[in-house]
Amino acid sequence: MRKISASDIEYIAMGSTVLGTGGGGDPYIGKLLAREAIKSYGEVELISADELKDDALVVPIAAFGAPMILVEKLFSGDEFVKAFEMMESYLGRKIDAVMPAEAGGLNGVIPFSVAAQKKIPLVDADGMGRAFPRLEMVTFTLHGIPVSPITQADEKGNRNVYHTINNVWGETLVGATTIQMGGSCAVGCYPMSGKQVKKAAIHDIVSYAQVLGEAILDAKANHKNPVDALIDKADAIKLFSGKVSNVSTKIDGRWNKGICEILGLDKDQGSHLTLDFQNEFLLAKKDGEAIAITPDLIVLIDAENAQPITAESIQFGTRVIVLGMKADAQWRTPEGIELGGPEKFGYKERFIPIEELNKK
Amino acid sequence: MRKISASDIEYIAMGSTVLGTGGGGDPYIGKLLAREAIKSYGEVELISADELKDDALVVPIAAFGAPMILVEKLFSGDEFVKAFEMMESYLGRKIDAVMPAEAGGLNGVIPFSVAAQKKIPLVDADGMGRAFPRLEMVTFTLHGIPVSPITQADEKGNRNVYHTINNVWGETLVGATTIQMGGSCAVGCYPMSGKQVKKAAIHDIVSYAQVLGEAILDAKANHKNPVDALIDKADAIKLFSGKVSNVSTKIDGRWNKGICEILGLDKDQGSHLTLDFQNEFLLAKKDGEAIAITPDLIVLIDAENAQPITAESIQFGTRVIVLGMKADAQWRTPEGIELGGPEKFGYKERFIPIEELNKK
Repeated sequence: MRKISASDIEYIAMGSTVLGTGGGGDPYIGKLLAREAIKSYGEVELISADELKDDALVVPIAAFGAPMILVEKLFSGDEFVKAFEMMESYLGRKIDAVMPAEAGGLNGVIPFSVAAQKKIPLVDADGMGRAFPRLEMVTFTLHGIPVSPITQADEKGNRNVYHTINNVWGETLVGATTIQMGGSCAVGCYPMSGKQVKKAAIHDIVSYAQVLGEAILDAKANHKNPVDALIDKADAIKLFSGKVSNVSTKIDGRWNKGICEILGLDKDQGSHLTLDFQNEFLLAKKDGEAIAITPDLIVLIDAENAQPITAESIQFGTRVIVLGMKADAQWRTPEGIELGGPEKFGYKERFIPIEELNKK
Repeated sequence: MRKISASDIEYIAMGSTVLGTGGGGDPYIGKLLAREAIKSYGEVELISADELKDDALVVPIAAFGAPMILVEKLFSGDEFVKAFEMMESYLGRKIDAVMPAEAGGLNGVIPFSVAAQKKIPLVDADGMGRAFPRLEMVTFTLHGIPVSPITQADEKGNRNVYHTINNVWGETLVGATTIQMGGSCAVGCYPMSGKQVKKAAIHDIVSYAQVLGEAILDAKANHKNPVDALIDKADAIKLFSGKVSNVSTKIDGRWNKGICEILGLDKDQGSHLTLDFQNEFLLAKKDGEAIAITPDLIVLIDAENAQPITAESIQFGTRVIVLGMKADAQWRTPEGIELGGPEKFGYKERFIPIEELNKK
């Protein structure tokens, strides 16, 4: 256990943007909510999954919606607490700890505001180790943990509870109402026991986000190279460096789909990279050949300051570096690849780990 | 109080089709479910609203969805009982009686199957006195009764509870998930007290449906004119008689919108009638002049046998008679016209009662 202060949140938010792999919603608003809650209610206890009692009730709390809208539409803040309280009331039991469903993006920090207000610990674990666009795309699904009951609250005051027959139906039904709600809402989902968290979750991911955020921000503060610092701490592979030459985007409901094209500079001079995104970056191809494939992480950063760039905010002409990071081992199993791999997103490529694709 | 037998259901279903005004879903499947339940579990007590205790808990149970799908997609039957049981469990209280939300169409008979299985009375009242396409279009809304909590069950086993900020949001959110569920589901909604039913509901409407059904079916059995018998019992105005010359239909989600054109025969020879429908028939114009306007009832019947024709099953060339019936007085108030009148459906006509439009 350690205490998380408002300044820790700064680092965690930066690291969450890295793990967001271009999606997951920019953590800016989530960071503000988390810092504000910590200032008002006190620091949050971050506990490791192993510190949980086996019979503890743990509930991931998350923002759900379209990345563009999660950035633009302000949360009132209390919809997350409402989703939390609805879960307690529906289950008829106190929740012992919250956790992020996804450590990537906005959802890496959102649960801190609930933990602070409710004065309960936040578990240093998540269900992705990155960001993914669909509710069922979590390691919890790989362990047969049901997404239901799902509690849903919007800023207007609508409050719903879903009990779906499987995790894909959770995405389908909550996705449909979220569009009607204006594109974003708060959800509580995958209520589980401490024992289940220990087995199914990706451990220590919040601390890992903090390490990545510290690498970038501390290097900058100390006039060192933040890109090198990030690559070092993330054990990342530098896939490409170049200049954004084109972005084509199609927004459809909860989806921000498109392709970002990058022309090579430096040692990549003359080469051409395409980044396919569906909320998150999912496939990187260099001169037509795949060099990074989901569920491995593809991270686009600004070459000047190592700031991760989200897919909805890519700007023509920006000098960028593309990094690849290994997905958690759970994602690299046949079941993990089936749930979060290229086929699931309609790509014809088969998953090959980045370290194999980029052997020297 | 009187007992409703399987053979009463036959009459009620026929009368519900009249009150369905072309929408509300064909009662055929609902009738089978209701008769089967009565055969298995015994006759259903039909009680008047005035027989309810003021503090009784009454819940309308209904099929919700697109008319075309309500006809084609088979209900498993137990989704209605599930919606009922979810409501009891959510409210933490036994339901004392069920009632139809709308007496028109499928929903005029569906609640009988639940009443039979649960061995509780069915209240002889509804919230429309007809059929209407949207969840908030009930007299309950005129009395400020919230639609929430809404319980929703589909035949696959998905079970949700909605707590929306107003009745329109109930339609919006349940409508969105119903499309995903394949276009139909069962809902429990507008839980209310006996006192509220007495004040807000349209009384004796189930018995009225039975009277209309008996008029048609008994006339046929006795080789009398069923059209005249229906007109007499319904105090209906015979608006037009002719032959269907064209039907244009556009299906979009929960909506079956279109126009039915009828060329005049007999005394209407040379005239032309158009029937605008949005699930239900909402506007009848003879040679360009409105002769019946929602919320008044427009009923299309087969000229041969007085069988009411639903909008999704109109066939070119059929000889038809168009009837107009007065809406319940609650619909003819300024608030009623605002909720269920022509403006609500996007027509430029203002509501004028059929008896005024068709003065001799």
